[in-house]
Amino acid sequence: MSRPLGSRWYGLVDIGGTKTIVAVAEESAIRARERFATEVILGPDDLTARIAAAWERLALGLGLSGLSGLAGLGVSVPGPVDVDRGVVRLAVNTRWKDYRLVDRLRQLVPGVPVVVDDDSNCAGLGEAFFGAGWGTPTQCYVTVSTGIGGALILDGRLYRGFQFAAGEIGHMPVMADGPLCQCGNRGCLEAISSGTAIAQRARERLTASNLLGVPPEAITAEEVFAAASRGHTVCQEIVADAAKYLGIGLASLVQLLNPPLIVLGGGVMNHYQELIAAIRKHMDDHLFAMHRGPLRIVHGVLGEDGGLLGALHLLTTSA
Amino acid sequence: MSRPLGSRWYGLVDIGGTKTIVAVAEESAIRARERFATEVILGPDDLTARIAAAWERLALGLGLSGLSGLAGLGVSVPGPVDVDRGVVRLAVNTRWKDYRLVDRLRQLVPGVPVVVDDDSNCAGLGEAFFGAGWGTPTQCYVTVSTGIGGALILDGRLYRGFQFAAGEIGHMPVMADGPLCQCGNRGCLEAISSGTAIAQRARERLTASNLLGVPPEAITAEEVFAAASRGHTVCQEIVADAAKYLGIGLASLVQLLNPPLIVLGGGVMNHYQELIAAIRKHMDDHLFAMHRGPLRIVHGVLGEDGGLLGALHLLTTSA
Repeated sequence: MSRPLGSRWYGLVDIGGTKTIVAVAEESAIRARERFATEVILGPDDLTARIAAAWERLALGLGLSGLSGLAGLGVSVPGPVDVDRGVVRLAVNTRWKDYRLVDRLRQLVPGVPVVVDDDSNCAGLGEAFFGAGWGTPTQCYVTVSTGIGGALILDGRLYRGFQFAAGEIGHMPVMADGPLCQCGNRGCLEAISSGTAIAQRARERLTASNLLGVPPEAITAEEVFAAASRGHTVCQEIVADAAKYLGIGLASLVQLLNPPLIVLGGGVMNHYQELIAAIRKHMDDHLFAMHRGPLRIVHGVLGEDGGLLGALHLLTTSA
Repeated sequence: MSRPLGSRWYGLVDIGGTKTIVAVAEESAIRARERFATEVILGPDDLTARIAAAWERLALGLGLSGLSGLAGLGVSVPGPVDVDRGVVRLAVNTRWKDYRLVDRLRQLVPGVPVVVDDDSNCAGLGEAFFGAGWGTPTQCYVTVSTGIGGALILDGRLYRGFQFAAGEIGHMPVMADGPLCQCGNRGCLEAISSGTAIAQRARERLTASNLLGVPPEAITAEEVFAAASRGHTVCQEIVADAAKYLGIGLASLVQLLNPPLIVLGGGVMNHYQELIAAIRKHMDDHLFAMHRGPLRIVHGVLGEDGGLLGALHLLTTSA
């Protein structure tokens, strides 16, 4: 393998609620990766040590001098981050609270720049600078997965808000007095249109006689989509409602920010082709006519690489 | 009156749906103003000529050499503007459509810089740089008046969106399948919480026997507020609903943009003290706990000067 002089190598990691992907990239190309289940790890210190060990293993495998061969570390985490202090404020699935991730990584890998941001921001930056949004300075990314999140890229830069909490599209209220959300509030978009909400609605609405062949507690959004495509009326209604409120939520986003482009990603958007016409219809119902046509909506193209490449973007632009 | 050497004078105008305010400012101090009813004017060319004549009269009255004594012209208009081309795309009340306002002003007042923007952006810039928002680089302005509009000031700059249509807070859908809005869509915030909507709800809900002492078609939002404060139950419900959905709309704004400050202005906000507790309660019901406390909400302080001073800000920062 040729090693161009001056080529730089980076350690990247996308810590997910269920799985963690560790990678090493040469410039913007991911050259090696490794994944493991996040849940098996007991605490954040252990997980961080395991990530560092994986970087070292991957770097050595690529012929580099281990961790010292990496020019920077970029981390995507599943929850809100104090970006300036490098502290993960909360990550519900991994049970982190106010964890000083950047300090810990600096202990493990001294002398190397470290950046950290939340998973939605990283995935949005990945699509904006390496994926479906390439070439458009202003765009909004929306991920529809177990939760719903977003990233606002305005004039070529991530807009984070004053508590690093901008882009919480999933917690915009879209239905007054609507269903209870995991955040404790009612009527959030996430409580209607996330994968979790789609599965939850099916559990609530399907009686024992028309379950989807699995115990109620085992119903997933995937099964609801599959049943809807087979013609199951209740599942079709649940999917239609999810699309309707996604359209309404995106309309609010567009009325506020008037972006030229929206990139949709996340696991639920694996059903992009089934959903986009209904999303667009309900969105257009709430936009001015002059905004409907020019606004582009596209499906993200990076899949699981989005978060890694977004962390890479932060790393290479913050240095 | 002393005239400091190098002091600059500007012509400003706030063209409203019903009244137009023409002013001349010395640096950031408005030194003279004149107002007239917008409706009496037949077309935009006539109105523009009348504005130029008023500037000349005001400038001469201040001891300047007429129009040639003005260093720039700043215009606030009641509808969407193509800021780059200086074209007023639509102003419903004045019946303008794609009017080349800046070209016309350049004919009337040659050789002088001209800026134009819509009334919400101008009022928001006024409060941000000369009023209640002074000193806070990121803030959102929301005006609740006959309509509902807004301005997004992010990191010290007005964020306009790609079609100059950002900040349309009044047209965020807040109630699926809600009341019809003047824009033609359903469930917009403006269709529930604007002064127009408050009056409209009263007309719909008050039967002949409990009208407010005026013919139904003459009911205004002011009368609904007055009746509510006298204990009129239906009017209290209408005001409560307006506040509730304002809270919900502002919550969506905060979830998306996480600003440290919201400035509320416009005629309906003359009832700020009656409304703010309910607005804040419904907003907080839809925010994360960590966002409730730090977010400041304040009442605008500039009144009718806001639009003029915002146009001035654009003029002095675009030169």
